[in-house]
Amino acid sequence: MSEKINEPVLTNRNLLDRFVFTREYTERLVEFLQVEDFVIQPTLFVSPPKWHLAHTTWFFEEFVLAREDRYVRVNPEYAYLFNSYYNDIGSRIPRIQRGMQTRPTVAEVFEYRKRITESVVEELLREQNNPDNATLIELGIQHEQQHQELLLTDIKYILGTQYLRPGYAQDVFQSGTEHIPVTTEEYISISGGVYAIGHEGNSFHFDNERPRHNTLLSDFKICDGLVRNADYLEFIADGAYNNPMLWLDEGWSWINQHMINAPMYWEMKHGIWMHYTLDGLKPVEPETPTTHVSYYEADAFANWQGKRLPTEFEWEIASEHFAWGDRWEWTCSSYEGYPGYRAVPGAIGEYNGKFMINQRVLRGGSFATPNGHSRKTYRNFFHPDMRWQYTGIRLAARL
Amino acid sequence: MSEKINEPVLTNRNLLDRFVFTREYTERLVEFLQVEDFVIQPTLFVSPPKWHLAHTTWFFEEFVLAREDRYVRVNPEYAYLFNSYYNDIGSRIPRIQRGMQTRPTVAEVFEYRKRITESVVEELLREQNNPDNATLIELGIQHEQQHQELLLTDIKYILGTQYLRPGYAQDVFQSGTEHIPVTTEEYISISGGVYAIGHEGNSFHFDNERPRHNTLLSDFKICDGLVRNADYLEFIADGAYNNPMLWLDEGWSWINQHMINAPMYWEMKHGIWMHYTLDGLKPVEPETPTTHVSYYEADAFANWQGKRLPTEFEWEIASEHFAWGDRWEWTCSSYEGYPGYRAVPGAIGEYNGKFMINQRVLRGGSFATPNGHSRKTYRNFFHPDMRWQYTGIRLAARL
Amino acid sequence: MSEKINEPVLTNRNLLDRFVFTREYTERLVEFLQVEDFVIQPTLFVSPPKWHLAHTTWFFEEFVLAREDRYVRVNPEYAYLFNSYYNDIGSRIPRIQRGMQTRPTVAEVFEYRKRITESVVEELLREQNNPDNATLIELGIQHEQQHQELLLTDIKYILGTQYLRPGYAQDVFQSGTEHIPVTTEEYISISGGVYAIGHEGNSFHFDNERPRHNTLLSDFKICDGLVRNADYLEFIADGAYNNPMLWLDEGWSWINQHMINAPMYWEMKHGIWMHYTLDGLKPVEPETPTTHVSYYEADAFANWQGKRLPTEFEWEIASEHFAWGDRWEWTCSSYEGYPGYRAVPGAIGEYNGKFMINQRVLRGGSFATPNGHSRKTYRNFFHPDMRWQYTGIRLAARL
Amino acid sequence: MSEKINEPVLTNRNLLDRFVFTREYTERLVEFLQVEDFVIQPTLFVSPPKWHLAHTTWFFEEFVLAREDRYVRVNPEYAYLFNSYYNDIGSRIPRIQRGMQTRPTVAEVFEYRKRITESVVEELLREQNNPDNATLIELGIQHEQQHQELLLTDIKYILGTQYLRPGYAQDVFQSGTEHIPVTTEEYISISGGVYAIGHEGNSFHFDNERPRHNTLLSDFKICDGLVRNADYLEFIADGAYNNPMLWLDEGWSWINQHMINAPMYWEMKHGIWMHYTLDGLKPVEPETPTTHVSYYEADAFANWQGKRLPTEFEWEIASEHFAWGDRWEWTCSSYEGYPGYRAVPGAIGEYNGKFMINQRVLRGGSFATPNGHSRKTYRNFFHPDMRWQYTGIRLAARL
Repeated sequence: MSEKINEPVLTNRNLLDRFVFTREYTERLVEFLQVEDFVIQPTLFVSPPKWHLAHTTWFFEEFVLAREDRYVRVNPEYAYLFNSYYNDIGSRIPRIQRGMQTRPTVAEVFEYRKRITESVVEELLREQNNPDNATLIELGIQHEQQHQELLLTDIKYILGTQYLRPGYAQDVFQSGTEHIPVTTEEYISISGGVYAIGHEGNSFHFDNERPRHNTLLSDFKICDGLVRNADYLEFIADGAYNNPMLWLDEGWSWINQHMINAPMYWEMKHGIWMHYTLDGLKPVEPETPTTHVSYYEADAFANWQGKRLPTEFEWEIASEHFAWGDRWEWTCSSYEGYPGYRAVPGAIGEYNGKFMINQRVLRGGSFATPNGHSRKTYRNFFHPDMRWQYTGIRLAARL
Repeated sequence: MSEKINEPVLTNRNLLDRFVFTREYTERLVEFLQVEDFVIQPTLFVSPPKWHLAHTTWFFEEFVLAREDRYVRVNPEYAYLFNSYYNDIGSRIPRIQRGMQTRPTVAEVFEYRKRITESVVEELLREQNNPDNATLIELGIQHEQQHQELLLTDIKYILGTQYLRPGYAQDVFQSGTEHIPVTTEEYISISGGVYAIGHEGNSFHFDNERPRHNTLLSDFKICDGLVRNADYLEFIADGAYNNPMLWLDEGWSWINQHMINAPMYWEMKHGIWMHYTLDGLKPVEPETPTTHVSYYEADAFANWQGKRLPTEFEWEIASEHFAWGDRWEWTCSSYEGYPGYRAVPGAIGEYNGKFMINQRVLRGGSFATPNGHSRKTYRNFFHPDMRWQYTGIRLAARL
Repeated sequence: MSEKINEPVLTNRNLLDRFVFTREYTERLVEFLQVEDFVIQPTLFVSPPKWHLAHTTWFFEEFVLAREDRYVRVNPEYAYLFNSYYNDIGSRIPRIQRGMQTRPTVAEVFEYRKRITESVVEELLREQNNPDNATLIELGIQHEQQHQELLLTDIKYILGTQYLRPGYAQDVFQSGTEHIPVTTEEYISISGGVYAIGHEGNSFHFDNERPRHNTLLSDFKICDGLVRNADYLEFIADGAYNNPMLWLDEGWSWINQHMINAPMYWEMKHGIWMHYTLDGLKPVEPETPTTHVSYYEADAFANWQGKRLPTEFEWEIASEHFAWGDRWEWTCSSYEGYPGYRAVPGAIGEYNGKFMINQRVLRGGSFATPNGHSRKTYRNFFHPDMRWQYTGIRLAARL
Repeated sequence: MSEKINEPVLTNRNLLDRFVFTREYTERLVEFLQVEDFVIQPTLFVSPPKWHLAHTTWFFEEFVLAREDRYVRVNPEYAYLFNSYYNDIGSRIPRIQRGMQTRPTVAEVFEYRKRITESVVEELLREQNNPDNATLIELGIQHEQQHQELLLTDIKYILGTQYLRPGYAQDVFQSGTEHIPVTTEEYISISGGVYAIGHEGNSFHFDNERPRHNTLLSDFKICDGLVRNADYLEFIADGAYNNPMLWLDEGWSWINQHMINAPMYWEMKHGIWMHYTLDGLKPVEPETPTTHVSYYEADAFANWQGKRLPTEFEWEIASEHFAWGDRWEWTCSSYEGYPGYRAVPGAIGEYNGKFMINQRVLRGGSFATPNGHSRKTYRNFFHPDMRWQYTGIRLAARL
């Protein structure tokens, strides 16, 4: 039996509410930006906010509305400009040129959003709508939620790497702030055995969370709190960034090539470690969970502690026993398909499977993740050198 | 006797008018831009329009206003953000990061312009103003005029290299358009002999136009019209871009490495050569002077014709006998100091002298050059691979 | 209980024979090289043959002989020149400069080999030798065997990528040639269940083969023969290198960036696919197992067949049921430490653990692997774009 | 009237002697190399000694012997491997791959040399030989002499940039050593006026030394001795490498990008400046002329002294009044064709003209220049960042 992307139990009514809320929430997130901030792409992996707004819109146009033959696109060029990576759909602008397009303007992109939002709402209100569309609209909502988090981390990068370090805002996020302190650090022991892993039931999930399958774990223990900045400052003070014996070979090359000596967004000012946050440059807070570390740094930190990172399976099983959701937690699991995984045919199948190489799984979520978007079986993934997301470290060890 | 930068004969009153006009004209040139267009830097040698607006303003603040000790800067960070290349003044943002700064915003830059313009006007109206300031304000005007041309060519690059190829405008330029046809192509004969070269008299000129000195020319002839697109289309049709024997060795490498087969902004559409102009994408006009060619292309074209490019000295002497000012004309002269040239001490000395290496002199001017900015002794200069300026080709030969 | 690198059951006598044989076999492998061939490094991942000869020698000098305080090194500079990647030992020449050192000469390197070989033989013949040394000499032998295979694949690269494509030799290899045909292609079915994985017992093994541990497998089937060139030619003919839907995203970028359209060393001549082999350029043989493919290609081939690559655990369990050893077989397993794995402290711990990122496990061996060097629990590993080793493809699928 | 490459007054007999001597002298220069040293290419602008030996041979085969239709080439592949830059002749190996070819071997290259030398000797001994061939053989001799100097400077680079810094030899050079001290530093005054520049008469010269033509000079003075290391050590001690005001803009970028703080081959050891010479690493000698400086450094040094570099015309006129030939002396003249210069048609025309861009003229010669090869009208040329030749500095100034 083949995996389905999702099996929505929602009525169209529920879906409509969630659709409208999601579209509005994206716009709320960019409320404090200046027009100028919408345009630039300071590095390959960051996209201009304008692009996120248009791409999430194109996703609905392409996968929902344009399924009808008689549909007339808002602008046929947009398929080229706002396709991200779907080879099945056709050619697209090279990623590195996203920040070179000043047109369409921000106002035109908002107009595009408005028209597509209205068309999807009409589709959802229609009595006999296309039954597959509900599935695809749900996927579009989930997709837009993913981009909401990317939007915030890209905004942070855009503002936080420019010379004037302008702050952004505090009060647009559903899920609190990046300043919530860690309050516990006890180790929880979990017995080994055969455990079922992966999504269960009919609620929405991505194809990479299935098939649900058994896996065999050994006894292990895992910390109920994340690594705090106070811990990480000790790691730095102990000379960790100068000690090759703590690092993966590629990590050691990476910190030397890029002259890295602290998490991203940290900078030493007059002898004090400062940290750029979405509300501006602040002294590093000892009690908040360390963030913006690469896998290399998370792994080196664990080595320095004589511990290790959990596997994604250990994390999933143990996650009942601790609070999570403040940071995306690096696991030591390579991002692979679960036994029996197969991508669905066509463009939608390009969503997850083709990225299953050279990436590590992160579990949990962050304060920038939209409410209800993540779950314990959710598998986020990034290359080991990426750290502009709200990554964090949870330690584990053998019993 | 040392060279002076200029010896203004203008009263402050004249200077005031020209200053105010120059500041306003800059702003007129960006009238049709969207805010988004002000921000990006699609390649190293292009600067964001916002940057030009601020940099020309900083020039007055730094070299005129800040000479007074008690002057309080509008924003002390601007000296770092808007210094272009003056090492004597201090550190500055790496050129490649000009397009990464969304702040200050366009509105803030206009506010900065307004405040500096007002302060300079006050300075000029003051009864006993600093006598050196008139000289520096004149230099600032000339400097801003240079940036007016760069602004237009950078705007062309920003709009003309993006996917949607938006047009700009026709009616903001003092000096006509890029579409004026070539109407003559007669060769003028000039007898050899000793000729005086370089600026004469007290009117404004740059230090690189002096000392006026004698040079010895042989007999030569020079065409009174520029090379037209019709001529250049023949050159292409004759396979010139595939014939190494026509090219300088570096030129041959350059066209192959960058896969160049036509002037910049030319593209073949459905078998027709199109040309992006400031008023949009148009079919190439046979009679208008070829533009956006590199020195390599100009030199190869001349070889193909069995002719050569003129030296800058031949050009200066012959320029009485033909109309010029539609294109910056590549000469075969390397950009060097005239005999006895010496840069003035301090930051102002960085204006010209330090660039006297690996560049070719261009003479004349273009429709994008502000009225009155150029003159027959004016020496523009670019590296031989640069072609986003309104460059053109005039042929010469031995008699 | 911590893992030991190995627990040799060999007497010193046996070890002596194997040591002497290994040292001689290395030299036999380079017998047909010209002095010139020993020097160059055509790409970062290839080392000059001279370097392999010296590095394997330095390994014995550093880890066995130099453990004695009074030992006088043959040349103290060699530690800098011939250390590969042991940070614990000190600084070393950047990898990219290995091919820039013409000195010591080949003759001097052979002299160095001779002196170190003699010293180690003396150590082994000494009645009361250092008991740890036997362990380290065994490791040195295994290490040199690994370099014997690298030596052959680097020689192939050095000769096979130069303009004249000189052949090497056929008759120096213990284990046959690269031309042995595939004779079977039946699928073997294996039932799921809990299986023990990893090295068992006291014979030599690397630290990455331990701890032996249980893993849970589902039912699967696996082919008893490798993919042949005839199969791969069909894959090419079917347009696979132009079909993005078959490829991992990074694989698709990789083939496009490097303009790859066939396995390494394949070239089309007059309409016929030729293959450079150690005995020269030959038409591709349909029946021999495809080799010099990257992980990306192996994975795309499996997709095209509607199959998949086996995991390294499936491979280890199934390996009793088929012949292996002609090609290193890509598995879909990421190279990670087994549960409870920990690198030993010090330089020897840098042997395996620090490479456990972004690499895939290969199982089996190739005709270039020295006799007795590999075993069913042996874990070779390379980045997914590497293909200058004798890699190959074995298919698997769900039952 | 078109320029001829040369108008030899030599009889064939004289030519034969010079040919044979030149061929032998090349081989004498590599006498102390190890086979390994012949192969590598440590950087793009250095060629393997083996390549020089073969390329100079190919030049005679291609331009002299192969002019006869029935000539059978030693190996038809050699035209591809040993053509340097003659597009008119056909495709060739990319320059960067010269050091990747271990075949033909050094012995095979010597065999190739022997066969071509014999064939050219036969041609010269033949009673009715091709009259054009004498001209081309003379050009081949001059060409090989140029490569003799490149051979020595490339050998220096190959040995002097490797870790062990092996020395080469002292006693193979015709023209002394690099250690000859500077003994005078008086300024000579020259009056301005019209002077004839360029080669006069029928003896051998390159096409770039003609047409002889008049040029107009102002009064100037020029030093009769070269800048010594003692002078250059003061320049360094005065912080010149940290003072942007002394440098051309590109020079300042160049020293910062490459972290340059001294001439090439200088290194500080235990607080003493050492200098790698062809006879090994030695303390910098205060009295010998500074060498291995780029144009940027020569220009900055002159600025620091309040002087300038001479033009190539000043140099040619003044050269009667001082000794020269120890270092190639940077002039401030851009390398251009003389008025009326035109490259001859065909491959021979690629010898000089196509390099007339972005290079500076050097005049004089060095101890590594073969006896009789240079003359006062000889124009050497390099890019301003090149410094592996025996470059040096002579100062000039206005009167």
